[in-house]
Amino acid sequence: MSDQIKKPNRIKPELPSGFRDYGPADAIAKQAMIDTIRKTFERFGFDPLETSSVQRTEVLTGGEEDSGKIIFNVKGSQEETSDSSLRFDLTVPLARFMAANPDLPKPFKRYQIGNVWRGERPQQGRYREFLQADVDIVGSSLIDADAEIATIIYTVFKNLGIENFVINYNNRKMLDMLPKFAGFPEEKLWDALRIIDKKDKIGEDGIRGELEKNFSGSIADKILEFLTEDFEPTLQGEGFSEYGKIASMILQSTGCDVDMVNKFFKLERTLVRGLSYYTGSVFEVTLPDAPEIGSVCGGGRYDELVSQFTGQNIPAVGVSFGVDRLFAAMEKIGTLKKKQTLTQVLILQLDANLKDEYLSMAQELRNAGINTALYMGDDSMLKGQLNYALKKEIPYVVICGSREKEKNVVTVKNLATREQQEITREKIVEFFGKQAALCV
Amino acid sequence: MSDQIKKPNRIKPELPSGFRDYGPADAIAKQAMIDTIRKTFERFGFDPLETSSVQRTEVLTGGEEDSGKIIFNVKGSQEETSDSSLRFDLTVPLARFMAANPDLPKPFKRYQIGNVWRGERPQQGRYREFLQADVDIVGSSLIDADAEIATIIYTVFKNLGIENFVINYNNRKMLDMLPKFAGFPEEKLWDALRIIDKKDKIGEDGIRGELEKNFSGSIADKILEFLTEDFEPTLQGEGFSEYGKIASMILQSTGCDVDMVNKFFKLERTLVRGLSYYTGSVFEVTLPDAPEIGSVCGGGRYDELVSQFTGQNIPAVGVSFGVDRLFAAMEKIGTLKKKQTLTQVLILQLDANLKDEYLSMAQELRNAGINTALYMGDDSMLKGQLNYALKKEIPYVVICGSREKEKNVVTVKNLATREQQEITREKIVEFFGKQAALCV
Repeated sequence: MSDQIKKPNRIKPELPSGFRDYGPADAIAKQAMIDTIRKTFERFGFDPLETSSVQRTEVLTGGEEDSGKIIFNVKGSQEETSDSSLRFDLTVPLARFMAANPDLPKPFKRYQIGNVWRGERPQQGRYREFLQADVDIVGSSLIDADAEIATIIYTVFKNLGIENFVINYNNRKMLDMLPKFAGFPEEKLWDALRIIDKKDKIGEDGIRGELEKNFSGSIADKILEFLTEDFEPTLQGEGFSEYGKIASMILQSTGCDVDMVNKFFKLERTLVRGLSYYTGSVFEVTLPDAPEIGSVCGGGRYDELVSQFTGQNIPAVGVSFGVDRLFAAMEKIGTLKKKQTLTQVLILQLDANLKDEYLSMAQELRNAGINTALYMGDDSMLKGQLNYALKKEIPYVVICGSREKEKNVVTVKNLATREQQEITREKIVEFFGKQAALCV
Repeated sequence: MSDQIKKPNRIKPELPSGFRDYGPADAIAKQAMIDTIRKTFERFGFDPLETSSVQRTEVLTGGEEDSGKIIFNVKGSQEETSDSSLRFDLTVPLARFMAANPDLPKPFKRYQIGNVWRGERPQQGRYREFLQADVDIVGSSLIDADAEIATIIYTVFKNLGIENFVINYNNRKMLDMLPKFAGFPEEKLWDALRIIDKKDKIGEDGIRGELEKNFSGSIADKILEFLTEDFEPTLQGEGFSEYGKIASMILQSTGCDVDMVNKFFKLERTLVRGLSYYTGSVFEVTLPDAPEIGSVCGGGRYDELVSQFTGQNIPAVGVSFGVDRLFAAMEKIGTLKKKQTLTQVLILQLDANLKDEYLSMAQELRNAGINTALYMGDDSMLKGQLNYALKKEIPYVVICGSREKEKNVVTVKNLATREQQEITREKIVEFFGKQAALCV
């Protein structure tokens, strides 16, 4: 290997701002999370769907301006102009897919785990590329579907080992009653909702101040009255009764008792969620042990989104788990299981004459389902190769030199306990077959 | 649900040219392929790495012009100009990662399975977004590493159920000897290689014609002599001896006999592969049963790629499996196992009074690891719900009406055989636990 410098103008090995890599230890932990989420979705009868990362810009913006300025435009080197962009969520591409495939049997239950891109200003724990895990039921207007989504949220968090989570629930049908109750015109609903949505940031006093800039004092009072926790349920109509139905189905479908359900499933009357496409249930999950991460899962019912393509409404409900934010939260809480490698055994290469033996051992162990590496570095000495295994945190090494070969044995060393033992060459698969469970 | 048309100007639910979706049946089959490939990589001691999809354009082009015009530029709505692009492979981002993380223990064995984007003209079976599965050993100059990559190729194809494949092998060190042997200046090597590389497209006569346009007749003769299959091995130096060493290690590490290895591991003296960064072994896999798909896996040794960032060479070897092309090939050959759904059981909703019972059954089955859906459509009748299960190709339905409830039984129907039987309510998990293996 020569050390010649090929390019005098070296290129900085940097990433664009707002993007990141996952090194092996992080990628192993993230992959385990993805596997858990995927298996949970499949248990509930969802199948995978894979939509394209690149979509027509018009599809993503709904034909309107990209008001949030979050879309990444994509342009090929051979193109003069471009009308394509990277998806910013997995919901809009799903709606497009449903519109393009009207004959799919419904309800259509799909999950998708894929990256999305948003050109937002990068900040702590927020990146411009991030992985979403979405689960949606399309073609069911039953409240059962909303309840199933809530049950899936519960089950995903349990399966990830997160015990302390809150599913904040609200219902757009309740918020839709606000103009009539408070006595302001329907057109001003979104002015009110935009203010209410800021409660986490500016507090109740802040909301009152902003409301009074847009509404009369008595209307502002009525709006705040509507949002109080013990506001008269009978005045809240269908949205409130849907909340009750969902809570009662969660009871049945999780096996939790009432106190437990009340602890993690909470009516949060000020929850709006920015997207205007929601029409009923709205969910947003927060982790009390990592409040600075914000929402780690959110979604709701969007019965009218598909209609922008077909003119016909198809009811739909679903949520999106923010896998990278969940990763950051679990890392902070301490529930993320990290390890440096998935490799269980490293076979050292100590004697060039025994290469065939090393290759055969590796093949036998791999065939038995044991993740096995053969040392391939520059160091021909035992000590250097052991050091490599220690740095990589590989649990076991197999040592076989001419002495072992003559005796028809191998030495197996556990690098955690530093214990080593000689085993008969033929017993190597049996030995690691038994140990494999311990290495995982 | 209202049918009102929300937007008078409806948006066409189309994808940009060159992009595609994978519907559930395709996505299930593709996910199974990915799982197989990933498990195989892990068996050989590779760990996952996840690099960013978006990279600085300069990193991707090596600071030179995008000569192939294949790069997709990415620009945020808030940005005036952009120096970021979508990765076109997983190798360059890996080299960048290695340069940015110089202290990683080496050899560094990583795999990555991720999408890449190329702005090429779309054609049959080729898309502008496609999934690559890459496996690379960085920091080993040993020929053992090249041999391990060849063994992994063999094992991946075997594990995917593809019996008929050819690993075409060549070595840049052999091709590098061409100028001296044929008597032309080193600077003209790439002119010759570009012509040789076209052999599949224009045949040997075509190559001769093009060579004679660029070289004298006697040099062209020497070039063609160098490429003949039985060309004197001793004149081919280290590259040829590496071929022999790899073949002999494949023998040991696969358990194949010599005839088998000769059948799938072939020296192909005209194999160049376009990328100039290869420095030794070059691999390209073709499927004789799907020749029109072209290469489904390719790669080689690239000892100097990392140096463009650091000035210091780090030896590396690896290959990339083209998952979407492999998908298309397996579909054509008939080795792709397709099914419409992963759901094993559908519980029908026939009686609103029994909803709690349905929810409990679903929870029990899911807890036992059985993929279970609850019917959530509009049809309240048995026939309609059965039709849904048939269309979705769900193997089993559970029927429980008031009659069954009273008898404390459920009726289980196998939709493939149309057989049905009554089982005690408490035996439902046990029943499907036994059947689960059959449903998969």
